[in-house]
Amino acid sequence: MINWNNLDTTIAYKELFDVAPVNLAEVMAGENGADRVKKYSVPMAAGMAFNYAAKQVDEDVLAALAKLAEEMQLAEKFEALYNGAVINTGEKRMVLHHMTRGQLGQAVVADGVDKRSFYVEQQQKIAELANKVHNGEITNAAGEKFTTVVQIGIGGSDLGPRAMYLALENWAKVNDTFKMEAKFISNVDPDDAAGVLATIDVEHSIFVLVSKSGTTLETLTNESFVKDALKNAGLDPSKHMIAVTSETSPLAKSDDYLAAFFMDDYIGGRYSSTSGVGGAVLSLAFGPEVFAQFLEGAAAEDKLAQNKDILANPAMLDALIGVYERNVLGYQTTAVLPYSQALSRFPAHLQQADMESNGKSVNRFGEPVNYVTGPVIFGEPGTNGQHSFYQLLHQGTDIIPLQFIGFKNSQMGRDVVIQDSTSQQKLSANVVAQIVAFACGKEDADRNKYFAGGRPSSIIVGEQLTPAALGALLSHFENKIMYQGFVWNLNSFDQEGVQLGKVLAKKVLAHDTDGALKAYSDLLNI
Amino acid sequence: MINWNNLDTTIAYKELFDVAPVNLAEVMAGENGADRVKKYSVPMAAGMAFNYAAKQVDEDVLAALAKLAEEMQLAEKFEALYNGAVINTGEKRMVLHHMTRGQLGQAVVADGVDKRSFYVEQQQKIAELANKVHNGEITNAAGEKFTTVVQIGIGGSDLGPRAMYLALENWAKVNDTFKMEAKFISNVDPDDAAGVLATIDVEHSIFVLVSKSGTTLETLTNESFVKDALKNAGLDPSKHMIAVTSETSPLAKSDDYLAAFFMDDYIGGRYSSTSGVGGAVLSLAFGPEVFAQFLEGAAAEDKLAQNKDILANPAMLDALIGVYERNVLGYQTTAVLPYSQALSRFPAHLQQADMESNGKSVNRFGEPVNYVTGPVIFGEPGTNGQHSFYQLLHQGTDIIPLQFIGFKNSQMGRDVVIQDSTSQQKLSANVVAQIVAFACGKEDADRNKYFAGGRPSSIIVGEQLTPAALGALLSHFENKIMYQGFVWNLNSFDQEGVQLGKVLAKKVLAHDTDGALKAYSDLLNI
Repeated sequence: MINWNNLDTTIAYKELFDVAPVNLAEVMAGENGADRVKKYSVPMAAGMAFNYAAKQVDEDVLAALAKLAEEMQLAEKFEALYNGAVINTGEKRMVLHHMTRGQLGQAVVADGVDKRSFYVEQQQKIAELANKVHNGEITNAAGEKFTTVVQIGIGGSDLGPRAMYLALENWAKVNDTFKMEAKFISNVDPDDAAGVLATIDVEHSIFVLVSKSGTTLETLTNESFVKDALKNAGLDPSKHMIAVTSETSPLAKSDDYLAAFFMDDYIGGRYSSTSGVGGAVLSLAFGPEVFAQFLEGAAAEDKLAQNKDILANPAMLDALIGVYERNVLGYQTTAVLPYSQALSRFPAHLQQADMESNGKSVNRFGEPVNYVTGPVIFGEPGTNGQHSFYQLLHQGTDIIPLQFIGFKNSQMGRDVVIQDSTSQQKLSANVVAQIVAFACGKEDADRNKYFAGGRPSSIIVGEQLTPAALGALLSHFENKIMYQGFVWNLNSFDQEGVQLGKVLAKKVLAHDTDGALKAYSDLLNI
Repeated sequence: MINWNNLDTTIAYKELFDVAPVNLAEVMAGENGADRVKKYSVPMAAGMAFNYAAKQVDEDVLAALAKLAEEMQLAEKFEALYNGAVINTGEKRMVLHHMTRGQLGQAVVADGVDKRSFYVEQQQKIAELANKVHNGEITNAAGEKFTTVVQIGIGGSDLGPRAMYLALENWAKVNDTFKMEAKFISNVDPDDAAGVLATIDVEHSIFVLVSKSGTTLETLTNESFVKDALKNAGLDPSKHMIAVTSETSPLAKSDDYLAAFFMDDYIGGRYSSTSGVGGAVLSLAFGPEVFAQFLEGAAAEDKLAQNKDILANPAMLDALIGVYERNVLGYQTTAVLPYSQALSRFPAHLQQADMESNGKSVNRFGEPVNYVTGPVIFGEPGTNGQHSFYQLLHQGTDIIPLQFIGFKNSQMGRDVVIQDSTSQQKLSANVVAQIVAFACGKEDADRNKYFAGGRPSSIIVGEQLTPAALGALLSHFENKIMYQGFVWNLNSFDQEGVQLGKVLAKKVLAHDTDGALKAYSDLLNI
């Protein structure tokens, strides 16, 4: 029997406040620090590890967090989720994105079909299409191969797939699996579509229209923009477009598309990278095998997220430490800092995944909660961030918890030795240096050169950013967010906060306004 | 006589806490809201306006802020700055970036030269080089024109110039001033340089190496990477590279470069977009005339920042409202949300400009301050952000102040009518709707669909994102940051917080480590 209760009703939460806080600079000094680095590590899939040595935890804090996990039945809640419980209470839906990459529990039947089979079938259909495009069975009207794939989508239909594409683009190039360049059109700003169209050869481009409902205004507008460009080039749009949508959407059976692939209401947009939403563009860009490896990495990491022992469950542990930082230590923001240029847009994807899931003030039953919930998430790749906002992270007046990601090897293997080290060694040396600098600080009589330290971070370390490693990373953060939602007792799978803006925008466009809405409309000449 | 004093020593600051806070949802309702939109607006350069109707201010708050500006001598401090006072107390340097685009006050002579003349001379030399590249006087060894310019730099030598390039790329294309595509290499991650090199034709590429000191390790490493690629292609690197550096740097007189252009110690990296750091790449990409228009826009906005009346000084007013939000209302983060895809990296530039300038805990004399300083800055373009993190902005447990930017017209002029409106109208309607939704909220018996409102925002509205408008925008935010630094009594122009990481990274690379530093080095196989 699962008890869905608010964080502040638990005994373990109250006890967390009684545990002595950890002095990070102190515990990370000397050999004790080295011991922590060796000990405070949890294996992840694809040869990675989640190292939390530089977080403000010790045995007492971890014991209290384990108690919280048990009292809040976190593993049981995940089990209920993947076995098909209606976890999305607001929209009364199941939450099945894990099933796009594996079967963690029992079979789930909905809409008359086994859902795992349904997702596998869609993946296979996409693979068939991608192979036909790659081998020239499907071509443009002139019989020439498509060279570019352009995804048209916004939010979850854009951020995740785009971040994953950028993460694997160079890996695919050096591993001879790079098939087609991908581009993305998302913003309703007409300069977005016009700008992308100015850089591609539409005659050799295939477009992937992604909208679950088939009614997303931004996406339909951009589709129209692209269709006009195709027609102006004397081309038949229906020979250049595929759709990823739900079976009940107006796009599903339309002759306007070469093919349509399906998702369903149990896959939230921000959790759709492993469904056809990411599958079509990634399979076209890199081949279906690469997309399959990506799914395997995610599936392996999902399995780890089932562990009841928080010390063997990196996602749950990461989630609990985050809650401790947010609700007990009072930190408001979290930075995600991948030391990998390929992950340049991974923080932007997590920004949506996290902030849209847990940026809420009511619990899963619609009752206001009395504690803070999801933090602000931001980040840029290191070393770039070091030359940008790290000043504030080191010496600002607020403490910002950090999540580093680093790899032992680069993706492309091209490197140069300057001052006796490779670029990859410099990159890794920098993330190591930063973790210790943030944790330990530095005394200095000149207060301008003094570093207080005590600034917590974790690092996920991997061998190389491969498709499997990327899948595992994605799963880790998705499951971390899910577990934090469970702790805060939120429904992490709806997004009612985006509705009001949509309603008011329609009123503005219909000139059905008064007061400030009218005055701002005048200001912008609408 | 200027008194450099801490914020909490002023009378006006204490009085600010006594002013009744504004109930934003209440004052923005009905015709009062419309009146605020019309009244709470300050003209900016290039036909823009800073509208702060949806900020938590009223006549009383504004009066208190005006008093604070006067008591803290903000305008006088700016005057001292542009007249050559040593404002960068830590490094004992003047702060002259305004002079790269105009002469606000008296002549400033340093290093034996009039600084305004020096910056103009560099701009002219860059213009000459750019014209020669464009008209084919300077070519590759085969006598063919260069088609691509690649900036090699990090931090301020990357973020600002990159954001400005992206902001004007499409504008230049439709205004027939687009000369060369620009690319950027910044990260020491070898995949960054290798990835960019994989997408360009090095034979027709000219590289701009940017490092003030000439010793930035990331940049020199990437230079070496690029030189190897040029040599491997049988090319002479010295015929493909120019340098932007200080006159005393090792790069200044080197035969390794086609030409060298100079900046100096009075231009901080994050304030260098209007110097040769931005000038070389932007003049090559778009022509010197476009860069000159950009400077004119910045110069015009700088002039407005001289006004003592806060209601006629958008940068100072914006700064003061931000301080009120940060120190009195207690908000920790600020989001920058341009409704313009062209400004996609403008928030990332502001993230550096703001967080590196004011993310400090000691005042300009090196004494700890007893109040919070610079906020975390993040942002993405609208409408994309709406489908991402706006959920938290609307319904999260923390209030995040917002800075919108919008334009009446798109840059490229290509558009499509769907459901009776253009994309540009939809874009503008969305920003209008968001401002009102954030401010006013919405009652709903279903708490999951309830919006509390009271979430403050401002908007900068312009006709179109032209080079002049972009310059004005950049100036606005630079001067806002400067004024906030004055209020917090910080030295906004050094960055001692980046030093410790550099020192420790060197130790790691030299294997001169123990404790946690050694353990993390082992973890990453360094």
